[in-house]
Amino acid sequence: MGSGKILVAQGGGPTAVINQSLVGVALEARRFRDVTRVYGALHGVRGIVDEQFIDLTQETSHNLELVAATPSSALGSTRDKPDAKCCAEIFNVLRAHEIEHFFYIGGNDSSDTVRIVSEQARAAGYPLRAIHIPKTIDNDLVGSDHTPGFPSAARFVAQAFAGANLDNASLPGVYVGVVMGRHAGFLTAASALGKKFPDDGPHLIYLPERTFSIESFLADVKAAYDRYGRCVIAVSEGIHDASGEPIATLLAREVERDAHGNVQLSGTGALADLLCDEIREKLGIKRVRGDTFGYLQRSFIGCVSDVDQREAREVGEKAVQYAFWGDRDGSVAIRRSGFYSADYALLPLSDVAGKTRTMEDEFIAPSGTDVTDAFRLYLRPLLGSGMPDAFRLRCARVPKILKA
Amino acid sequence: MGSGKILVAQGGGPTAVINQSLVGVALEARRFRDVTRVYGALHGVRGIVDEQFIDLTQETSHNLELVAATPSSALGSTRDKPDAKCCAEIFNVLRAHEIEHFFYIGGNDSSDTVRIVSEQARAAGYPLRAIHIPKTIDNDLVGSDHTPGFPSAARFVAQAFAGANLDNASLPGVYVGVVMGRHAGFLTAASALGKKFPDDGPHLIYLPERTFSIESFLADVKAAYDRYGRCVIAVSEGIHDASGEPIATLLAREVERDAHGNVQLSGTGALADLLCDEIREKLGIKRVRGDTFGYLQRSFIGCVSDVDQREAREVGEKAVQYAFWGDRDGSVAIRRSGFYSADYALLPLSDVAGKTRTMEDEFIAPSGTDVTDAFRLYLRPLLGSGMPDAFRLRCARVPKILKA
Repeated sequence: MGSGKILVAQGGGPTAVINQSLVGVALEARRFRDVTRVYGALHGVRGIVDEQFIDLTQETSHNLELVAATPSSALGSTRDKPDAKCCAEIFNVLRAHEIEHFFYIGGNDSSDTVRIVSEQARAAGYPLRAIHIPKTIDNDLVGSDHTPGFPSAARFVAQAFAGANLDNASLPGVYVGVVMGRHAGFLTAASALGKKFPDDGPHLIYLPERTFSIESFLADVKAAYDRYGRCVIAVSEGIHDASGEPIATLLAREVERDAHGNVQLSGTGALADLLCDEIREKLGIKRVRGDTFGYLQRSFIGCVSDVDQREAREVGEKAVQYAFWGDRDGSVAIRRSGFYSADYALLPLSDVAGKTRTMEDEFIAPSGTDVTDAFRLYLRPLLGSGMPDAFRLRCARVPKILKA
Repeated sequence: MGSGKILVAQGGGPTAVINQSLVGVALEARRFRDVTRVYGALHGVRGIVDEQFIDLTQETSHNLELVAATPSSALGSTRDKPDAKCCAEIFNVLRAHEIEHFFYIGGNDSSDTVRIVSEQARAAGYPLRAIHIPKTIDNDLVGSDHTPGFPSAARFVAQAFAGANLDNASLPGVYVGVVMGRHAGFLTAASALGKKFPDDGPHLIYLPERTFSIESFLADVKAAYDRYGRCVIAVSEGIHDASGEPIATLLAREVERDAHGNVQLSGTGALADLLCDEIREKLGIKRVRGDTFGYLQRSFIGCVSDVDQREAREVGEKAVQYAFWGDRDGSVAIRRSGFYSADYALLPLSDVAGKTRTMEDEFIAPSGTDVTDAFRLYLRPLLGSGMPDAFRLRCARVPKILKA
């Protein structure tokens, strides 16, 4: 054991509970007598290279608890993906600061970063223990029952659609809500949990796991509209045609790509507007409205699952325990151990890094535009306690007199 | 006193608390021995003409309480504005059902509907008592301190910007959030209440009360971005140029107008996308993201002000009291009577109907891109209890070793 300094950083898109994991690391680490300092790197791997560290050991536990309950990445985040040269710089910095434990809280790309750093450390003979702590609203890490951050975002989406359904019932028409999720439809599918009565929306759900055809889409919308006199639709931003081309990019004037080569899908209302235009023009429906949930769904303050908060804290704590009591690098995973309870495991980094989970077939209805009861059973306990509920008037009709 | 039947209906855009007013009417009316039946018309004035009534007297008080806590209009709503012919049909129906008390919960357009119905009833010699019960997230009714529905929508907007600010601090760039509000900027201004620390966003707020110039906008954004390394911007959907032309319609391919002659501004992400494109192209900033809050801000289930709930209930109760103990038609108004307490008054319909309140100058900072402390003092108590709060890490920097 060296100086007893550990380093924690956050990468990728923020979530409502990512700071729970950060605080889980910070508070749990101080219970280990070998730990002298808990450093936090600002803005992920970029902050390591630039030696932008803050000393979390000097924080009060009280303020750490308040930060834990605050959404988004308190250390700042990054989309940078380190190459070999960058990793060499990282080692130089870690070595200079005598840091031998590295915890990186993030999603797919971040887990791959941890894998690269871990391999380079081994190749360089540097005694680094590197642990990936999961986080992503997309729920697309393989090997986990679900990922911290997803339940709270799912709760936001479910609540948003519960409200949108009530709004649409009040002023009938077609409503399209576009939800985040590049490859995995979990978050879009969460819209189904906003449904209470059989005729509630969302009436149609479009996932990136199924090929999207504008013709089928219009036929589906017409059928639902004819049946319910209105139609609420949940659409994943990642829907694509048979060739794999995202529907969103078909009309995007400029395709913006980030450092990981991902096409920018969020931060624009174009997909919702395109779909609304199609419905208006091809089906002749007048009242058609589209919302793009955008960044609200991952950072809204005050809509969080208490189950998610607890688990995000625990993956941080477990990461520290694995680091000091274990003998290998890895990625912390959540395993479902009851209805509902969870437990944790440490997976090899190579099992997780750079891989993408998508929705299992058993979660998607044969129609391709709805979820199954298996999915409802899977997701409901994750949404946590105190979910708001919708109620209806159910009283008797008054007999007509003039138009009887 | 006739048959003792009263009628209540809901008009215009839904809010998170409009059913509180409905239930306030239904429960309070049954305390009056003269009241035998409480009818609800489905989808506003349209439901009256079509004799689409339900008998709220047959509801349980328990279910009414649950419906009260459910957002959106439980009776259904309408954008229809009755003309003289339509009013004549309304009288025929009211007369046939022996309804002599009419309560209409709605905003500007609905108050004008009540005024027309009231005047036509008087002209026709029909003994109708017509009371307008205020509701609008826009907060644009004259004569009221504020309107039921606004505080809850304002709370959503404040929470959304508190989260968006944290997200933007984590992954710096420019964020544009477009908020509802055709003529009045109150809801957009509520974004300022999401701010805690001095360098928090929103850094810029654009209101329909001030002329919007794209040149000034870009200069403002550049200055804020240079200062903070990022920029969070709140924009009202109703911003317009010097000629009064909405910025949103400058790029809208088709201008959709509703029955009141209003241009359709919501339900499209075009304005946010346009502004983001301008920032990207003219300022050369790479990470620019736009969200349009759309329908989420008025119907999201689970984000409500308890003060708003209470007052929405009370305006419904007071409406019934004014109707049975008073001697004139009118519009119920909220008056601020302390810091913070509220009281109610009945205004002449002509004082309210068809008029639009906009933000008072004392609420807008001289820069035109921020609110004043007077506005913060005005809005804060309305947001209710349990507002989520954001916290930051504030610990010491670790001295650099390699790059010292």
